[in-house]
Amino acid sequence: MSNYIISISREFGSGGRLIGKRLAAQLGIPCYDRTIIQKTSEKSGLSPDFIARAEERARSRFHLSIAPVGVGVPAMAHQGVPVSHQAFFAQAEVIRELAGEGPCVIVGRCADCVLAGKADTLNVFIHSEMSFKIERSIAEHGLEREKAASILARRDKARAHHYRFYTDQRWGDARNYDLCLDSGALGVENCVAVIAGLYERFNRQTAAAMG
Amino acid sequence: MSNYIISISREFGSGGRLIGKRLAAQLGIPCYDRTIIQKTSEKSGLSPDFIARAEERARSRFHLSIAPVGVGVPAMAHQGVPVSHQAFFAQAEVIRELAGEGPCVIVGRCADCVLAGKADTLNVFIHSEMSFKIERSIAEHGLEREKAASILARRDKARAHHYRFYTDQRWGDARNYDLCLDSGALGVENCVAVIAGLYERFNRQTAAAMG
Repeated sequence: MSNYIISISREFGSGGRLIGKRLAAQLGIPCYDRTIIQKTSEKSGLSPDFIARAEERARSRFHLSIAPVGVGVPAMAHQGVPVSHQAFFAQAEVIRELAGEGPCVIVGRCADCVLAGKADTLNVFIHSEMSFKIERSIAEHGLEREKAASILARRDKARAHHYRFYTDQRWGDARNYDLCLDSGALGVENCVAVIAGLYERFNRQTAAAMG
Repeated sequence: MSNYIISISREFGSGGRLIGKRLAAQLGIPCYDRTIIQKTSEKSGLSPDFIARAEERARSRFHLSIAPVGVGVPAMAHQGVPVSHQAFFAQAEVIRELAGEGPCVIVGRCADCVLAGKADTLNVFIHSEMSFKIERSIAEHGLEREKAASILARRDKARAHHYRFYTDQRWGDARNYDLCLDSGALGVENCVAVIAGLYERFNRQTAAAMG
């Protein structure tokens, strides 16, 4: 059995987190999502909320100079590293540690770029058209219908900025991922089946190559 | 059995055509590629070479005003429609006719945008990193190693221009496709397996829904 990591990046409301959870359950491996925020908080001394909202801050051109309010003095604060960077790098360390422990699914948190270059990683991007995301966001996250479209657009814009800042690449460009799936067109269950199928093929192929 | 059409767009050298052919063979359905050029030629009176090179012409800002050399007078020439447009629209008609005949795989030719809005279409984009495409292009197309990278880049740039011109969308953006696959990272056989698996799931689901 090899040590495959599946990273899932996703548009807000596309069902990427649900796909990650179902996939992990089907494969019998852990799915990390908010766990990463908690562990990053422990490692860095920064609050979970500050870490979770990194994407939103990335939209501001001042995000590297503003110190968070109500956050304890973080471990690296004396080294002249902006606090947003500290959060990102502490989170990257957590992701690499979790990936080292065994096969898992990691949802969001820029795991694809943190693990870039690591063999045995399947980087997945989940997207869908706006109408599908709006319906899901109303049902799953309780968004108000009138505000849903603008909230979704703002969240994705923030993700794109954050991704661009740390990777210098275009968020959502197919060429940054091994696999991209339209959860609206294909359906959540079919997305889970495609990724699970690939994961199982990889494991069989690795086992066969190792004799 | 439903009438699923699989369109495959691909970076030059990524193995998209090979994936299309193997997929069609495995599913027992036709794969259209150069057939479309021949049929478009018959329909429009334009030469196969002129039609095949539409992408290359799209890079030129003059492509809508220059008449092709050595091409017979096309059917629509008197109607004031630029010849490049005539080629594109005649090709679109051929694609829609083929798609109407039954399940098939269509490689390239902007089939994804021609068939946009048609239900039962799986739009796939195949890409891979440059080193994989260079090795494949040398082996499959006999490109010289020294020139391969620049030829590949030029061909893809032309495709991107052509796609942009007729669809006003970004070529290679994951959000334009149902499924995007990195043929270098996943391997050609795994790409075939993923698409075939989805196709078969769709057919089972359609059959189940129809009782």
